[in-house]
Amino acid sequence: MSPLGSQQLSPPSCRGLGRALELCQAAAQMNKNSSDIMALAPNTPNRRGTVCIFGTGDFGRALGQKMIQSGYSVVYGSRSTQVSNLIPKDAEVLGHTEAAQKAAIIIIAIQRQHYNFLTPLAEVLRGKVLVDISNNLKLNQYPESNAEHLAQLLPGSKVVKAFNTVSAWALQSGTLDASRQVFVCGDDVEAKEMVMNIVRALGLNPLDKGSLLAAQEIENYPLQLFPMWKFPIFLSLGLAAFFFFYCLALDVIYTYIYENNNFSFFIAITIPNRICPVMALILLALVYLPGIFAAIIQLYRGTKYRRFPDWLDKWMLCRKQLGLIALAFASLHVVFTLVTPMRAFVSWRASKGIITQALKNKTEPLDHTNAWISDSYLALGILGYFLFVLLGITSLPSVSNNVNWREFRFVQSKLGFLALTLCTAHTLVYGGKWFLSPSAYKWYLPNIYILSLIVPCVVLAVKFVLIFPCVDKPLTQIRQGWERNPKYSKQSNYIINKSAV
Amino acid sequence: MSPLGSQQLSPPSCRGLGRALELCQAAAQMNKNSSDIMALAPNTPNRRGTVCIFGTGDFGRALGQKMIQSGYSVVYGSRSTQVSNLIPKDAEVLGHTEAAQKAAIIIIAIQRQHYNFLTPLAEVLRGKVLVDISNNLKLNQYPESNAEHLAQLLPGSKVVKAFNTVSAWALQSGTLDASRQVFVCGDDVEAKEMVMNIVRALGLNPLDKGSLLAAQEIENYPLQLFPMWKFPIFLSLGLAAFFFFYCLALDVIYTYIYENNNFSFFIAITIPNRICPVMALILLALVYLPGIFAAIIQLYRGTKYRRFPDWLDKWMLCRKQLGLIALAFASLHVVFTLVTPMRAFVSWRASKGIITQALKNKTEPLDHTNAWISDSYLALGILGYFLFVLLGITSLPSVSNNVNWREFRFVQSKLGFLALTLCTAHTLVYGGKWFLSPSAYKWYLPNIYILSLIVPCVVLAVKFVLIFPCVDKPLTQIRQGWERNPKYSKQSNYIINKSAV
Amino acid sequence: MSPLGSQQLSPPSCRGLGRALELCQAAAQMNKNSSDIMALAPNTPNRRGTVCIFGTGDFGRALGQKMIQSGYSVVYGSRSTQVSNLIPKDAEVLGHTEAAQKAAIIIIAIQRQHYNFLTPLAEVLRGKVLVDISNNLKLNQYPESNAEHLAQLLPGSKVVKAFNTVSAWALQSGTLDASRQVFVCGDDVEAKEMVMNIVRALGLNPLDKGSLLAAQEIENYPLQLFPMWKFPIFLSLGLAAFFFFYCLALDVIYTYIYENNNFSFFIAITIPNRICPVMALILLALVYLPGIFAAIIQLYRGTKYRRFPDWLDKWMLCRKQLGLIALAFASLHVVFTLVTPMRAFVSWRASKGIITQALKNKTEPLDHTNAWISDSYLALGILGYFLFVLLGITSLPSVSNNVNWREFRFVQSKLGFLALTLCTAHTLVYGGKWFLSPSAYKWYLPNIYILSLIVPCVVLAVKFVLIFPCVDKPLTQIRQGWERNPKYSKQSNYIINKSAV
Repeated sequence: MSPLGSQQLSPPSCRGLGRALELCQAAAQMNKNSSDIMALAPNTPNRRGTVCIFGTGDFGRALGQKMIQSGYSVVYGSRSTQVSNLIPKDAEVLGHTEAAQKAAIIIIAIQRQHYNFLTPLAEVLRGKVLVDISNNLKLNQYPESNAEHLAQLLPGSKVVKAFNTVSAWALQSGTLDASRQVFVCGDDVEAKEMVMNIVRALGLNPLDKGSLLAAQEIENYPLQLFPMWKFPIFLSLGLAAFFFFYCLALDVIYTYIYENNNFSFFIAITIPNRICPVMALILLALVYLPGIFAAIIQLYRGTKYRRFPDWLDKWMLCRKQLGLIALAFASLHVVFTLVTPMRAFVSWRASKGIITQALKNKTEPLDHTNAWISDSYLALGILGYFLFVLLGITSLPSVSNNVNWREFRFVQSKLGFLALTLCTAHTLVYGGKWFLSPSAYKWYLPNIYILSLIVPCVVLAVKFVLIFPCVDKPLTQIRQGWERNPKYSKQSNYIINKSAV
Repeated sequence: MSPLGSQQLSPPSCRGLGRALELCQAAAQMNKNSSDIMALAPNTPNRRGTVCIFGTGDFGRALGQKMIQSGYSVVYGSRSTQVSNLIPKDAEVLGHTEAAQKAAIIIIAIQRQHYNFLTPLAEVLRGKVLVDISNNLKLNQYPESNAEHLAQLLPGSKVVKAFNTVSAWALQSGTLDASRQVFVCGDDVEAKEMVMNIVRALGLNPLDKGSLLAAQEIENYPLQLFPMWKFPIFLSLGLAAFFFFYCLALDVIYTYIYENNNFSFFIAITIPNRICPVMALILLALVYLPGIFAAIIQLYRGTKYRRFPDWLDKWMLCRKQLGLIALAFASLHVVFTLVTPMRAFVSWRASKGIITQALKNKTEPLDHTNAWISDSYLALGILGYFLFVLLGITSLPSVSNNVNWREFRFVQSKLGFLALTLCTAHTLVYGGKWFLSPSAYKWYLPNIYILSLIVPCVVLAVKFVLIFPCVDKPLTQIRQGWERNPKYSKQSNYIINKSAV
Repeated sequence: MSPLGSQQLSPPSCRGLGRALELCQAAAQMNKNSSDIMALAPNTPNRRGTVCIFGTGDFGRALGQKMIQSGYSVVYGSRSTQVSNLIPKDAEVLGHTEAAQKAAIIIIAIQRQHYNFLTPLAEVLRGKVLVDISNNLKLNQYPESNAEHLAQLLPGSKVVKAFNTVSAWALQSGTLDASRQVFVCGDDVEAKEMVMNIVRALGLNPLDKGSLLAAQEIENYPLQLFPMWKFPIFLSLGLAAFFFFYCLALDVIYTYIYENNNFSFFIAITIPNRICPVMALILLALVYLPGIFAAIIQLYRGTKYRRFPDWLDKWMLCRKQLGLIALAFASLHVVFTLVTPMRAFVSWRASKGIITQALKNKTEPLDHTNAWISDSYLALGILGYFLFVLLGITSLPSVSNNVNWREFRFVQSKLGFLALTLCTAHTLVYGGKWFLSPSAYKWYLPNIYILSLIVPCVVLAVKFVLIFPCVDKPLTQIRQGWERNPKYSKQSNYIINKSAV
C-alpha cells in the first residue's frame, strides 16, 4: 500500500466543478498503478530546486508527488505540521511562513475564499512567485479572476496563473492521451518563465497566454460546455422542430382528415427520415453561404482591409460545427433509409402490391425510366455522403494537423462544394417528378424537400458565377491585398504599398 | 546513392523485438527520401557539443545522423576504427577509450549481453553520462532493467534511460505522424536534463519518468501488446462463446429435434446477429456499473478518502475498452441487421408469405400496432447507436484532447446513460410481446435478449435512484471532500480541515 | 474596436498561395475574439528581449502582436515611420536601419521580389540573425530557396528559415487544433537556437530540419497537394476505369446485343458495385504484395544490408495510402450493396419471381445450400470489412501515436492479413459456383471477380509459404542482422560483427 492514497487525487477541475465524478475516481486510480512504478527520485544532492505548496488537498498532493518525481524538492505549507500519511513521503511539511521562506515559487493550492489568510504573510511572500491553480464552480463567478484577486491581495508578489486545466490524471499517469497543454499567464515575464520551466520538467506543454488579464479566460476554460456548438445546435433544433411539425401536418394530420388513414406511426421513422436529409442539405449549404457573402462583400467594397459585419464573423466561426451537425443528420438519414425494408409497413405495402398484380394474373414490365431515376438518385446520394464523410474525417484534429493549408483548403472547399452539388442533385432527382404535380402540394404547401432545395441552389448558383474568370480574377487580387479604392484604409495603405509587403 | 544505406535503419524496438519487419523497411526507406533533402550541417565552428556513440549498428547510425543534422559533433566508439561507408560521413570513428574521452555524453547503442565489455572502460567512463537505449525481446526478460544493470556495472557513471521507444522512422522522417514522445529516466537530475536537451534538439518531446527504477517500465513499454485490452477482450470472448452455444442449443438443436427443421445455416448470420446486440448491451451496461458501485460504496462509507476494492479499481480502468468493444458489437449488429433483406432465407420466407396470401385470394390489412412496434424499435435502436458512435468518436485521443473535463464528462456520462437507456428501450420494445409468451421459453430457458436486459435494467434503476436529490446531495458533498464519519481518515482529516484545502 | 483589424491577418501560406481564402478569413476572425481576451503584457521592465520585424504586412503584424503578448519588445522596420492604427499599439515603428540596430534578430516579413532593397543595409545586418518566413506561389518557383537567396544577398548575416508553415490562426487563436509545428533550418546553430527559443515562447513546437539546404523542402511543404497520394490515386483511377469499361462491355453491351435487354441503368449502381469490391480487394492485396517481394529478395540475397530496388521502396512508402483507398472502395461497396432492396429494378425482379411462383400455384422449398452460401458470404464480407475498418481507425494519426511499434505491427500485419483472407474468402464463396459454368464467360472473357482474385490469392499463397518455420527462421535471422553471404557488405561487416552491435 503506497503512502499516497489514490482516492485523494481528483484534479482541480473536478474539485472546481464541485461535482461528483466517477471518472475522476478512475483518474485517481491510475496513480495506484503508476506509483508502484514511478519511483521517487532518491535524495540526490543535485535536485532541481525547491518548490513550496500551500495546501495539502487533493491537487496539491498530486502536484507535489509529480514534482518530487521530476527532481524538485517540495515543501508543504500547512497550519498543522503534523506529518500526514497522505503527503508524499519525501516532502517536508512546515508552517506557512517557514515553508514560504524555503522556496522562490509558492503554489497556492487553496480555494479562493481562503485567500484572505495569505495577507498576513505578505511580507514573507514579497518578491516571490505565486502560482494560482484555482478554479471556480461557475463561469464568471467573481468580477475579477482568482489570480487577479490574489495579485490585488499581495501586490508585492508576482502572480502567475497555471495548472488549472490539468487533471491529476495527466499529472500522474504515463498515458499519452490526456491533454498536456498548460495555459500560463502572468504580468512578470521572468516569473512566468520559471513556472513554464516547471511545466516542461513535468512533461507538460506550457502555452503562454499573455498578461494576467488572460486569467479570466483561463479560469473559464474548464467550465465551458461546448461554447462553439451552442448556436449551431440551437439553430438545428429549431429548424428540425419546425420541419417536424410541418411534416406532421402534411403527412399525418392531412392524411387522417382527408384520406382517413391513420399514419401516426410515421412519427417514428418516416418523418425523421424526411427531416434528416432536409436538415443535412440546408446545414451543409449554410456552411458555404457565409463564404459567398464574404466574397460579395469584398467584391463590392473592393478591399479586404475592412472588417466583416459581426454576424458574418460569428457565422464563419461556426462553420465546422454546422458541417459536423449536417454530417450527423446525413448519417441518420442513411441509416433510417437502409432500415426501410425491415419496416412492417413497407413489407406490408410491398406484398400488397405484389398480391394485387398476382390476382390480376399479370406481371408489369420493368419501367426503365423508373429504374434509371431510382438508381441514379441512390448513386448520387451515396457519392455525396461518401465525400461528406471524407470531409468529416479531415476535420478530426489529428488529421487536420497533418495536412497543410493548401490540402485542407482543397478538401474543405473543392470536395465540400462537390459534396453539396451531389447532395443537391440527389434531392432534385429524387423529388423531380413531383415538382409540377399538384398532388404534391397538400394545403397548397410545398413538400419539405422543395423547401430544402432553396438555400443549396442559391449557394451553388452564386458560386457558379463567382468562379467565372471575370469575377474570380478581381476577387483573387483583392484577397492578395490589392485595393480598388484605397480610401477605405487610407492610413495603413501608405505603409503597405511603400514597404512592399 | 547516399553513403548511409537505407536498409540499415531499423529502430531499436525492431531490433529488440527480433522480428522481421517489412514495416521497418518502409521506415528505413524514409531516410533515403529525406537524406537527399535533410542536409548535414556544414562544419561550422559553433556546434552544440560532442556526443559519443558506442556501437555502429542500425540505430546508432540513425541517431548519429540525426544528431549531426541537429548540430552536434558525433564520434563513434568502435573496436575497429576503419571508416565504414555506412557511418554518417561527418562523424569520427575512434577506439572506445578515445571516443569516450571526447564527450560528456555516451550513447550505449549495443545490446545488453555485450555490456560486460564496458567494465574495463570504467575509469574512462567515470562521471560521464551514459544513455541506455536498449530494448529486450520479452517482457521482464531479466530480473533488473538493462539501464539498472548498466548502472551496477559502472557505478561511477550517471546512467540515463532514453530513446528506446523511438523508431528510426521518427528520427529520420519529417512526417508528423510518428510518435515523438521519448521517455527519460535516471537518478541524476543534471544528467537527465542534458539528455532531455538533446531530445528536444532532435525535435522530440522528452517525458521525465523519474528515477532509474522506472527503467523497467520504460523498457517494457515497446514490448506490450494492448495490456489494457486483455481483460475486456477475454471477458467479451468468454461471454460471446457462452451466448453462442446457448443460441445454438435453442435455435438450431431444439428446432432440429422438436420441429425437424435444419436451420444449421443460422450459424452464419442469425446467431451472430443475436449475440452481437446482447453483447453490446451487456458490455455497455458494464461500463456504467462500476460507477454505480463506487457511488454506493462512497454513500455507505460516507467519505471519498478511502481506496476502493482492487477489483473495482481495475474495472474502472478498463471502462473505455469495454465501451469500445461494445461499440464494435453494436456496429456488427447494425451491419448484420441491414443485410437481412439480401439473405436467401429471408427472401424465401417473405415470398412464401406473400404467395400464401395470394393463393388465399386476399390481402391482409395493415396491423397498426405492429407498424408502431416495428418502427419504434428501429428508431430507438438507430438513435441509441448514433449516440454510441458519438461516444466512440469522443474517445479518439485527438478529440478528447480538445475537450475540457466538463465537456468530456457531459458526453461520457450524460450522453452515455442516454445511449444505454435508448438501447435498453430498443431491446424491450423488440422483445416485449414475447416476454409472457410460453413459446418463447424453449426447454424452460429464456431467450437471450431477456438475459441481456438484466444488467442494463439494474444499472438504469439504481442510477434513477441515485439522481434523486435526497441521494445526490450527500453524494456530491462526499465527492467534494465532506466526510460523514471522520474516523476513516482521522490523521489526514486534521490537516485537510484546518488548512482549508 | 481593437486597433488591430482582424481582416489583415492572413497567414503567409495564404498570401503565398495567392488564392482567395474564405477559410483564411475565418482564421483571421479568431483574432477578434481572442484579442479582447489575450491582453498585451504591460510595459514591465523585464521583457524577453527585442525583435525587429521588417515589413508591416498581414503576417508581420500578426507575428508582432503574438510576440508582444509573449513578452518580447517588437520594433517594426518600415520606409514610413508614420504610426498606422493597424500596427500593434505597443510596437515601435522606425526606419529600417534604426529598427535593425535595436535587435539581434530581424524577421524578414517581405516578399522575395523585394529582397534586393536589403542589400544597402548589409552593413547594419552584419552578424544579425535574419529569419526568412516567406512562401512562394508555386513548387520550386525559383532555382534556389528564398532563404538561400537571402543568404547569398547578405553573406554577413545568419539566415534562419522558420514560421512559413504557421498560419495567423495558429499564432493568434488559443485553439489547440491548429498544427503548432514550426520547421526551422539554418547553417548557424546558435542563430537557429535563438529562433527556436522564440518559437517555443510563442507556444509552438520547433523542429530542426538541419542546414539551410533544407529550406527548399520547407518552402515547398505548404504548397504540396497530397504528394504521397498521387501515385495511389492515379493507379486506382486507372484500374477503376479499366474495370468500368470491362463491365460495361460484358454487362450492358453484350446483354443488349445478344439478349436484347437494355440494362443501361446498370451504370448507376450495378457496375459501380461490381468495380468497388474488385478495386478494394486488389488494392488491399497490393498493400501486402511489396512485403512479400521484400521477404523474397532478402531471402535470395541472404542479407538485409542492401537497398531494395527503387520501385519497391516507393511502393512500400505508399502502402498506407493504398490501404485507405481500398477501404474507401470497400465502404462504397457496402453502401451500394445495402441499398439493393431499395432499387426499383431489384424490387421489380423480386415481385416478378414471386408472381411467377404464385401463378404456378406452388411455393418452392427452401434451398439449404443456397441459404448456407448466401449467409456465409455475407458473414465473411461483414467480418472482413469490420477488420478493415479497424485497420483504418488504427491508421488515424492520433491512434497510431498511442500505440507502440509491436501493437501497430500486430494490427497492421496480423489483422491485415486476416482481413485480406476474409475478403478473399468472401469473393470466392460469392462467385464460386460460377467458376466452372461456361455461361459466366461472355465473349470468352472471365467475370471481373475472377480477375480480382488473382493478386490476393497469390499474396496469400506466398505468405502461407513464408510462415513455415523452415522459411520464417532464416528470414527472421536475416532481419536481425545475420548475413548468409557477407560479401555483399564486406566493409561494414567487420565493424558490425566486432563491435557487437
